[in-house]
Amino acid sequence: MFLLDPAFPESSEPVGDLALCHVRLQADARFPWLVLIPRLASARELEDLGEAERTQLMAEILRAGAAVRAVALAMARPAAKLNIAQLGNVTAQLHIHVIGRRTDDDAWPAPVWGVGAARPYDPADAALAIAAARAALGL
Amino acid sequence: MFLLDPAFPESSEPVGDLALCHVRLQADARFPWLVLIPRLASARELEDLGEAERTQLMAEILRAGAAVRAVALAMARPAAKLNIAQLGNVTAQLHIHVIGRRTDDDAWPAPVWGVGAARPYDPADAALAIAAARAALGL
Repeated sequence: MFLLDPAFPESSEPVGDLALCHVRLQADARFPWLVLIPRLASARELEDLGEAERTQLMAEILRAGAAVRAVALAMARPAAKLNIAQLGNVTAQLHIHVIGRRTDDDAWPAPVWGVGAARPYDPADAALAIAAARAALGL
Repeated sequence: MFLLDPAFPESSEPVGDLALCHVRLQADARFPWLVLIPRLASARELEDLGEAERTQLMAEILRAGAAVRAVALAMARPAAKLNIAQLGNVTAQLHIHVIGRRTDDDAWPAPVWGVGAARPYDPADAALAIAAARAALGL
């Protein structure tokens, strides 16, 4: 049975579910940032997915990339680059980060992890960002 | 025409070619670390690949993960975790990092990028690491 690690609700807001992944908006207004969590029990690495699941995951990563670009546009800060990563060193449950980057963002050109502190969304902006992500994802 | 960005030879050694990707060993003995570079002109994002190329890339990422584990074993430091990332903020040519991590490595639990300075391989270790990677990749 799939159970979401409690670390995700502490750091992100639900966007919706695709065929494989639960999608969340990272609660950090510095970066347009979605997190994909395959709804599979005990998955920690891409190795833990079957081939069909990996193909589906790749498709959902692409869709999440388009959704991140839509979130960035909704925040009036178009993304120039995507960063995609599966790390899991802190939270082991398999999840994929899809992040929009700009050359004027708070971490550029470094990766975003560990750079400064998350800046919470203004509630109206969070609602806009989630709506943009859902529309782009067809949710 | 595919041309390798000169940044790669400055920081890594060639391992060989899979069907889609050129594979390199990152010249940093602190981490078992392969870099996959799809041999496609002008690709910068996963969005730039066709669906069949993305499926092939996912398969090669899985194979690279197994090869990273083989490199780690050859260095007598088995990997406990894989980190997989497509960033490209500094070197724009599309490439995917596949890195083996341990809880006692120099960056844990942070991502490896920007942590300290690369530690060059002893030449004998580099040869062992590349041989282990090639064997695991069937090259």
